[in-house]
Amino acid sequence: MTDTLVRDCHALVPDPSGSLTLARNQDILVRGNRIAEIRPTGRPVEPGVTVLEGHRMLAMPGLINTHAHVPMVLFRGLAEDVPIERWFNEFIWPLESNLTEEDVYWGAQLGLLEMIEGGVTTVADHYFFMDRVAQAVEQAGTRAHLGWAMFASRGYKALADSAAFAEHWKGGAGGRITTCMAPHAPYTCDDGFLRASVGHANRLGLGIHIHAAEEMNQTLASVQKRGLTPIQVLEDTGVLSVPVLIAHACGLMPQDIDVLAKRRAHVGIAHAPKTYLKLAMGIAPIRALRKAGVAVGLATDGAVSNNTLDVFESLRLMALMQKHEALDPEVMPISEALDIATRGSAAALGMGERIGTLAPGYQADLILVDTRGAHWQPPHNLTAGLVYSARASDVHTVMVDGRVLMSERRHLTLDKERILAEVAGTMERMARRVPESRIQRYEP
Amino acid sequence: MTDTLVRDCHALVPDPSGSLTLARNQDILVRGNRIAEIRPTGRPVEPGVTVLEGHRMLAMPGLINTHAHVPMVLFRGLAEDVPIERWFNEFIWPLESNLTEEDVYWGAQLGLLEMIEGGVTTVADHYFFMDRVAQAVEQAGTRAHLGWAMFASRGYKALADSAAFAEHWKGGAGGRITTCMAPHAPYTCDDGFLRASVGHANRLGLGIHIHAAEEMNQTLASVQKRGLTPIQVLEDTGVLSVPVLIAHACGLMPQDIDVLAKRRAHVGIAHAPKTYLKLAMGIAPIRALRKAGVAVGLATDGAVSNNTLDVFESLRLMALMQKHEALDPEVMPISEALDIATRGSAAALGMGERIGTLAPGYQADLILVDTRGAHWQPPHNLTAGLVYSARASDVHTVMVDGRVLMSERRHLTLDKERILAEVAGTMERMARRVPESRIQRYEP
Repeated sequence: MTDTLVRDCHALVPDPSGSLTLARNQDILVRGNRIAEIRPTGRPVEPGVTVLEGHRMLAMPGLINTHAHVPMVLFRGLAEDVPIERWFNEFIWPLESNLTEEDVYWGAQLGLLEMIEGGVTTVADHYFFMDRVAQAVEQAGTRAHLGWAMFASRGYKALADSAAFAEHWKGGAGGRITTCMAPHAPYTCDDGFLRASVGHANRLGLGIHIHAAEEMNQTLASVQKRGLTPIQVLEDTGVLSVPVLIAHACGLMPQDIDVLAKRRAHVGIAHAPKTYLKLAMGIAPIRALRKAGVAVGLATDGAVSNNTLDVFESLRLMALMQKHEALDPEVMPISEALDIATRGSAAALGMGERIGTLAPGYQADLILVDTRGAHWQPPHNLTAGLVYSARASDVHTVMVDGRVLMSERRHLTLDKERILAEVAGTMERMARRVPESRIQRYEP
Repeated sequence: MTDTLVRDCHALVPDPSGSLTLARNQDILVRGNRIAEIRPTGRPVEPGVTVLEGHRMLAMPGLINTHAHVPMVLFRGLAEDVPIERWFNEFIWPLESNLTEEDVYWGAQLGLLEMIEGGVTTVADHYFFMDRVAQAVEQAGTRAHLGWAMFASRGYKALADSAAFAEHWKGGAGGRITTCMAPHAPYTCDDGFLRASVGHANRLGLGIHIHAAEEMNQTLASVQKRGLTPIQVLEDTGVLSVPVLIAHACGLMPQDIDVLAKRRAHVGIAHAPKTYLKLAMGIAPIRALRKAGVAVGLATDGAVSNNTLDVFESLRLMALMQKHEALDPEVMPISEALDIATRGSAAALGMGERIGTLAPGYQADLILVDTRGAHWQPPHNLTAGLVYSARASDVHTVMVDGRVLMSERRHLTLDKERILAEVAGTMERMARRVPESRIQRYEP
């Protein structure tokens, strides 16, 4: 792998106090798969170093999507304007009974294609046929944190199979793939199943990625049925004793925040505000969580609720909704929003030492955002632009582990034409719904 | 002007019941500046008709931005994370004392450039030096509804000058420009000034574009000071007796909706949700307004609060926020959201008979949205795509009054390079703030 110099970009970096700031006119030297140096531009380029022109580009850590169901792009637009019970029972879970391994493979590629175009370099994916998702990630060149979603109804053998997947692909794709156990949620996995998931996680030295307290009605149903909130169930079953990534936590009780605070060293919350608005789930109390020291990262969730995999949009909605909910426009200032989008998301995945920061020693996962568009002019305030003006289509160049995956919006790893053709070919079959044939039932 | 056939597009049209639906594989025949016919594709093209290829494009009425301060793009990003009082008193009104006529001219061109790129064909603009904005609109080829913003502090002579502007440019640019009186708001214009504005409007056969009840604190201040809500002030001073476009109405009392309902034949509300979230102003009760028969349209507001002029984003935020505020995901279904974005916005400007609908006899203001991007695939549901996946950057072709302004994202009317250079040249001067030198003071 050659070394690369990103020349004369504006770089989003931590200042000496740790706050994110924009260092103007910088060169970023990448050696192998890591950032070696960030310095004012102008020094001569060493021989053998490839130059990426960064003039009027903003360099930032690659975006991290902390919770998705990537292959669900196959169902984009098929479940609109419906409440969450119907969304699951009449749409998603019947539709998912259509899926073959091969569908998941091409769906994953389509989702990765879309995410690369939007500057997403890492995704925490929670789905089925995850060996095929792993193959797609290997091909795409991105980073991914993969867990094979499990319902208790699948049984302990399937759970063991998901653990075998996690063991096999742990550290895969040259270290770009990390894995976890992925029991679906406390309302679809009984305590024994959750404990068994923790057992596998402990045995393999892995964490858990799970849905919990998705919205308040779920929490209230759990309290009514068994006297415990979903977060208390996670605590009781040992889930919070391993590194855990929780989506979506919109239905937290005050005591849940105390529980999560005690486990803050290894708990992360995936925050997917577009899904919450679209399904009217309420907004997770992320300011209280951050105040309690719990890592919060940005997510899209699947494309059937979102309906895209656009983390720039998640960033903007997160910031806007925090101001709105607090009725205070000083809440969630630009610097904090960008902190969540970068270091927060990395920390939520337990990867804060490796990704999410542009600094020497970190993995060379970075994107160049083109600030030349009319909607950025005049460039008084480029960090405001990142939160409030940037579009996924402004992403110009994407690098993961020192390798360029997209340059001037041309894909270098994925075959876009083929992927779009494969997905077009299965579209009709994907849309068929047989309500009696569903993979699971939503009854929180 | 030649006739044009938009060939083989999917067209967003009213079905026989009046609901918006997507008619697939249609040809749209434009004769002169009007839509002549919409018919299934396949008929031979008449000689002399220019063909615009619409395959895999979605044709819809050009977007309408019902409330903006277009030249404020010059200040984009300069007032972030501040409450509304500071936003006005420490940022906007001091910054605006920097403006020259020439700045406004180039700022207007930059904003029109950005809006054309985002599929906006009509804007209701409320600003200063509006003769220069009118010249920019003339050049850009868009449609615009222009009012010269007035504070009582400017005096009656200035108000008369703004009326002279409105009279001069009424029907300008070949009918693409309409005009109005534009007293700023009840809190910056006393009753005498409002009545005088109504007098000019009546004399000239024009309407009024005004800010009112922007947020609840304003309304409460008005009630406390004088026992009337801002809407009641508009009623008392005769403003509601002429065609009136009201931004933003987030601070409505229940009785205000009754007042507006009585005037619904000629009242429109401009809804700019991104500003409301960013400045934590609350969300205007647009469902109640629509239920009362009041027209509601989409807006961006100025780029210092938004921070863009992206009406697709306004559409998405409008729909998401209505679901969120109602805690009901069935609220504001896709068809209703698109109705607001098209016919609602046209009606809010009092132009519902001329624009906002793709049908024979309407002005040929239409856009082609490219649905080939990864974030649209597979295309199960293109109307969902318009609301939840589309980006301004998907706009491929823009036509106003039968004339193509942008084709394959290339501008045919504006000189993008020159505009960006002019704006870059004044950027530093625009950012200077002398707090003592402000054009107005915010004390609602």
